[in-house]
Amino acid sequence: MARTASLSGFPEWLPQERLVELHVLDTLRKTFELHGFSSIETRAVETVGQLLRKGEIDKEVYGLSRLQDDDGDAAKTDPNALALHFDLTVPFARYVVENAGYLAFPFRRYQIQKVWRGERPQEGRAREFTQADIDVVGDGELPFRYDVEIALVIAEALSALPIPDFRLRINNRKLAEGFYRGIGLTDTAGVLRSIDKLEKIGAAKVAELLKTELGATDEQAGLALQLAGIRTEDTSFVDKVRALGVKDDLLEEGLGELQQVIEAAVQRAPGKVVADLSIARGLDYYTGTVVETVLVGHEQLGSICSGGRYDALASKGNRKFPGVGLSIGVTRLVSRILSQELATASRSVPTAVLVALNTDDSWSAAQDIAAQLRGRGIATEVAAKAEKFGKQIKFADRRGIPFVWFTDDDGKHQVKDIRSGEQVDADPSSWTPSDEDLHVRVTTTD
Amino acid sequence: MARTASLSGFPEWLPQERLVELHVLDTLRKTFELHGFSSIETRAVETVGQLLRKGEIDKEVYGLSRLQDDDGDAAKTDPNALALHFDLTVPFARYVVENAGYLAFPFRRYQIQKVWRGERPQEGRAREFTQADIDVVGDGELPFRYDVEIALVIAEALSALPIPDFRLRINNRKLAEGFYRGIGLTDTAGVLRSIDKLEKIGAAKVAELLKTELGATDEQAGLALQLAGIRTEDTSFVDKVRALGVKDDLLEEGLGELQQVIEAAVQRAPGKVVADLSIARGLDYYTGTVVETVLVGHEQLGSICSGGRYDALASKGNRKFPGVGLSIGVTRLVSRILSQELATASRSVPTAVLVALNTDDSWSAAQDIAAQLRGRGIATEVAAKAEKFGKQIKFADRRGIPFVWFTDDDGKHQVKDIRSGEQVDADPSSWTPSDEDLHVRVTTTD
Repeated sequence: MARTASLSGFPEWLPQERLVELHVLDTLRKTFELHGFSSIETRAVETVGQLLRKGEIDKEVYGLSRLQDDDGDAAKTDPNALALHFDLTVPFARYVVENAGYLAFPFRRYQIQKVWRGERPQEGRAREFTQADIDVVGDGELPFRYDVEIALVIAEALSALPIPDFRLRINNRKLAEGFYRGIGLTDTAGVLRSIDKLEKIGAAKVAELLKTELGATDEQAGLALQLAGIRTEDTSFVDKVRALGVKDDLLEEGLGELQQVIEAAVQRAPGKVVADLSIARGLDYYTGTVVETVLVGHEQLGSICSGGRYDALASKGNRKFPGVGLSIGVTRLVSRILSQELATASRSVPTAVLVALNTDDSWSAAQDIAAQLRGRGIATEVAAKAEKFGKQIKFADRRGIPFVWFTDDDGKHQVKDIRSGEQVDADPSSWTPSDEDLHVRVTTTD
Repeated sequence: MARTASLSGFPEWLPQERLVELHVLDTLRKTFELHGFSSIETRAVETVGQLLRKGEIDKEVYGLSRLQDDDGDAAKTDPNALALHFDLTVPFARYVVENAGYLAFPFRRYQIQKVWRGERPQEGRAREFTQADIDVVGDGELPFRYDVEIALVIAEALSALPIPDFRLRINNRKLAEGFYRGIGLTDTAGVLRSIDKLEKIGAAKVAELLKTELGATDEQAGLALQLAGIRTEDTSFVDKVRALGVKDDLLEEGLGELQQVIEAAVQRAPGKVVADLSIARGLDYYTGTVVETVLVGHEQLGSICSGGRYDALASKGNRKFPGVGLSIGVTRLVSRILSQELATASRSVPTAVLVALNTDDSWSAAQDIAAQLRGRGIATEVAAKAEKFGKQIKFADRRGIPFVWFTDDDGKHQVKDIRSGEQVDADPSSWTPSDEDLHVRVTTTD
């Protein structure tokens, strides 16, 4: 079943693969709603001006133009031209500002939608993919406690998925910025961009970058790398940072915030969260907590869930809407689950029962039986033709339907489990398959 | 709550409106799965060549180009350029052909996705909208019985929605083509195009069109209009057609097919289906059954569910994949439900309970209570700050949360229904709201 997409970067799933994806989506939705997050969707398109407002990723954007229009390359120069969104955070910020008068703050929302990026496709990176985001946005201010809560909700949501163990790696921009400032490096964005390359190019090359591009001394580069080397499963990172001897108010604020997150995580999501002071996040709108997440044993897949605190992404005149949120890369996760068969669906179709036909005229009676079964939540199909029973059973088998229902000329009903061959008398008004067979189940394979 | 979209033709819903849409989507999915339809999704983009293969609608298509590319207007001339799909049928046909080796036929699928058309927006017609399609596709042949089944499944699905009464209006292309041939009009597509305008321009103008554009005689035009005037709730249309005295084999075949659909519908979906011989459907790939659906009392909204039988949409060399399917216009339906307040959600957020804070330090204990409630499927939030209880209650009220949970310093729990003001002792390990309050319910308002 290892197929390649017919259009590179635009994966499509077979029905039995889609069942795995649906299970992931349903599980996320259920967890988010249990925590009081409201569903919203935003349109797939934004104006080019809106998308490029926050800079940086213009080259990955797909512009739109009507085929029959004369406006040609308009999308490339006209800020009102339309383009597909490349994430769900920028559209959400626009939605909050537009609808602020109708929303109750702090506003908690989840949003599960496709996004598009014109990047070169590779494993774990598609051109069309699904993201599942949760954010809490405040009006004017947003208590830090939401940073803690968001991390815990995501840990709970990921724990409910049929995936390998994972780690949320959490850092704090205030901590980093304060530390850099404390050692005399003021171009925070520049330092973060260099530190962000640590895993890719290694410490020596990052030190080179810091020195050549940002004018850091050996000592400054060394201290920045020492900070980035700190990774603890508890709050001991605080002492390790302090041991580096740097004093700064913002650093202290960041240490306090990260400590709160890690303290709560140790208690409520033990083993799932680490303080990792190398985490930088490329995008420049984060202002506090920053998060990346890896699947243990699949680290090279990249982050499967990222985000953080942003205090200034959305504003309306003087009114600010600070927020904190995390985004799960659903397609990246599902692609990995499918390609490595980490989880499978218990059958390939929703159908539990095929009602066989005795004669072609019995179709309507068969539909009556099917309606009774469906009334109890049992997914049921009716055969289209009164072929030999062997053929009808084969049809069910080929479709992956576990049960076939027979009604003889005297109106006696029997149901056959075609996996075991067992056939028993059954009453259409009461028969029910086992809980295991009632719905498709998706379970990890190991 | 009557807001206009900030981008014309791209509607977005508020959280409480989205709850209505979610209910519609969940209900459709549930009905489709109970009938054994598998979920699939196709990518949002197709090649321009693929989209225009079936002709006709090129001017409504949005082409894509990467903003940073030099290929400029490529999408308008290059058949390999990408464009957004304008329906789910053409992409589905492509998917079936590509994955034929992995699918079990007859293949039953549902597909609920957004589609895009660059048309001028108006009531009931958006540029981005959601469709919910079901189709059954065969390999080589597909028994006619599926035409009957598809109509019944759709009638059941629509009946489960919080919408006004509806009518499926069903016709058959063979019936029409055979009849036209029988009276000497051979340009079936041309006649259908004219008949399709009947509701818009009236019988006199359609007769004019038939005469001037297709060279029909007065008598031919008159007979074609007499046929289109036949509309019956039972199979009496057969006699009415025969009374017109036209003889043709294809006409007889079409009469027989439509009779089967109406017979089954009279029995299994009484009052929901009519034979309406004016139904033409613009797109030219239909070859038998054709369907449109109106909301009673909202006829000017246009069809909310359309489709039919296509014998030649998908093929792979000599291998043909005939199919039959129907497509529900979800956004058109939901827009109408919302703008006329035909249905509403019982509350505006998924949350049933807000756990109030006694002191700021009680947050973790409050999370323990929330986790117990969530474990029983009760959506629960925890307050972020230990404000005065009055303020915390106001917060719940503003968010639309019906219950607030209090724990006093002695660990005594109480829950308050803030609608009635009633406050009772409660145990976090067993308290449950009524079924009515457990989940958001969406109900019709009349």
